[in-house]
Amino acid sequence: MIGLTDEYYMRRALRLARKRAGKTSPNPLVGAVIVREGTIIGEGCHHRCGENHAEINAIESATETVAGATFYITLEPCSHHGRTPPCVDAVIACRPDRVVVGTTDPNPLVSGKGIEILRQSGIETRVGVLEEACREINEVFFKYILTGLPYVTLKFAQTLDGRIATASGDSRWISSNPSRKYAHRLRSLHDAILVGADTVLKDDPELTCRLVRGKNPLRIVCDSRLRLPLSARVFSDGGKTLLVATRRAAAERRRAFAERGIEVLEIAEDRAGRVDLREILRALGKREISSLLVEGGAAVITAFLKENLADRLLVVLSPKIVGAGVNSVGELGVRRMDDALGLSLRRIIRRGDDLILDARFNPPASR
Amino acid sequence: MIGLTDEYYMRRALRLARKRAGKTSPNPLVGAVIVREGTIIGEGCHHRCGENHAEINAIESATETVAGATFYITLEPCSHHGRTPPCVDAVIACRPDRVVVGTTDPNPLVSGKGIEILRQSGIETRVGVLEEACREINEVFFKYILTGLPYVTLKFAQTLDGRIATASGDSRWISSNPSRKYAHRLRSLHDAILVGADTVLKDDPELTCRLVRGKNPLRIVCDSRLRLPLSARVFSDGGKTLLVATRRAAAERRRAFAERGIEVLEIAEDRAGRVDLREILRALGKREISSLLVEGGAAVITAFLKENLADRLLVVLSPKIVGAGVNSVGELGVRRMDDALGLSLRRIIRRGDDLILDARFNPPASR
Repeated sequence: MIGLTDEYYMRRALRLARKRAGKTSPNPLVGAVIVREGTIIGEGCHHRCGENHAEINAIESATETVAGATFYITLEPCSHHGRTPPCVDAVIACRPDRVVVGTTDPNPLVSGKGIEILRQSGIETRVGVLEEACREINEVFFKYILTGLPYVTLKFAQTLDGRIATASGDSRWISSNPSRKYAHRLRSLHDAILVGADTVLKDDPELTCRLVRGKNPLRIVCDSRLRLPLSARVFSDGGKTLLVATRRAAAERRRAFAERGIEVLEIAEDRAGRVDLREILRALGKREISSLLVEGGAAVITAFLKENLADRLLVVLSPKIVGAGVNSVGELGVRRMDDALGLSLRRIIRRGDDLILDARFNPPASR
Repeated sequence: MIGLTDEYYMRRALRLARKRAGKTSPNPLVGAVIVREGTIIGEGCHHRCGENHAEINAIESATETVAGATFYITLEPCSHHGRTPPCVDAVIACRPDRVVVGTTDPNPLVSGKGIEILRQSGIETRVGVLEEACREINEVFFKYILTGLPYVTLKFAQTLDGRIATASGDSRWISSNPSRKYAHRLRSLHDAILVGADTVLKDDPELTCRLVRGKNPLRIVCDSRLRLPLSARVFSDGGKTLLVATRRAAAERRRAFAERGIEVLEIAEDRAGRVDLREILRALGKREISSLLVEGGAAVITAFLKENLADRLLVVLSPKIVGAGVNSVGELGVRRMDDALGLSLRRIIRRGDDLILDARFNPPASR
């Protein structure tokens, strides 16, 4: 095995990191591998916020001394006292010859400091191996740590011609069973799901991950005036649901929900008299919700698009054409094709007959 | 090389056949390979309507006697006198030991008779090797020979949200340069392209294949009342254009076009007073146009969809979201999602930033 490249071991560290996708929030996904003379002598990943960082798990798993070995870490080791002591000290303490880091940590508390400390301690440190992949697994964390706002993914299912329902409102079913299962898995990877009141009124969804194994995220329903009935499924089962309303919602409705143990978050109105989406994101960020999945309906999706608040788009494309009907996206005020919201396709996934397009919004400047 | 399978040589025959894609109309694509003791001793394909069939080219190319060899043909050899004498006689005459046929020929003049004659002559004949692939390369021919109608492909470029222009009508550019090049190649593989008068008025397209090498197909413009100006590019350059109008078109316009050497085809009106699409297809079939590419605009695309006249759909998906604007598909009268037109995705092609979805319409019964 001697002679394998840094990329090889970094790939292994990435694989370890990815195993915990959706489970480390608001912390990043991190994997670490310790190698001596072509043999992996220790490895680990970060499991859950508040528990050991990946480096510590790798050190603790080592079958022999780490002194003189090479340490691979997908993300720059932390250099500050957070929920746990700084990892960079622990790494230096076990005297590896070399440290290979996938990408630096944009967290302003770390951002290059971990690397600097390693180098100052005399350890040869290489930075930027499989950097893009190491960044990509932590898109959510990077946005959250830099802005305090959750990473926002919009998801909807539409026909090839961009419709989410027929003219008479029929939408059952646009997508196939396999892509509904994919959608449940997607939910389980998020801290919270958000829908508009219209979606609850129309479809009465449970918004759970019942088709897959995994945790149910917090359900958030935007219901500016608290019109929703207490009987909606989203309030009826055991899971946690947060209602978002403006101050115009009737006090008596507010009380009714409170009595059922359902929290109502009061958010400022936007110009249209609806809950201000930016405010919601700020409030969620404060609650350490680092990833938000917005599932519709069209009004909510359109509002997020219009305000440029989304980072990622997942479109489930069903190979059907329905003709005039309910459009997936409404008025955005775009007059010239050049001003359309631009995206970069990241992956194309097939599930049953459907195609799932996984894309990232381009920065507004380059749109 | 001894021991290679029938599939191996059939794949080679398929490759030969495909080389002539778009060039054999209204004849099928056919490839043939002659093999003795693991060595290819002859091969050929059908080049052009009126010229040798593939079997004859393979026989003529043979470097030694075909007697005792195995003959691979993607399509059942013809058994009737058409533009050329029956190939099955020529194959039998050179006494191969075995004939392997990809698929039978649905042409009612052949349809199994070629196979029967081979077997009756005592030649071991295997049918159905790589059958699906052998059928797929001749989708166009099979439809044309069975119905007398051209194979119809609808093609349009849209944003992710199903728009072909902004609300103010701006559509430049939805698709990227690489996918426009793909579109020109697609044109060159068709006998004819069809657009509506609106498209000519709005975009003044040339409808040529200038971005690629290849023949320019016949251009067909549906202009029920002959409103188009003679100055439109589609009439101005050297290529051939056919106008389709109803009898309500003014005689003087008809004369003006005739003077410019532009043929006007008179077609019955449909209930909406437009040219009847089914009638156009019948007329084109009579002219031995076996493949038709319909490029828009939305009204023409919608009309073909509504009448269930399309076989294949190519959607160029540009990774943009434009919001409310001009929809790619209009009213189809579909009320229930289950009644939407169903398609099967055949291929997904990336060109530049765009995604091209290549799909076939499911038979109406199973929609």
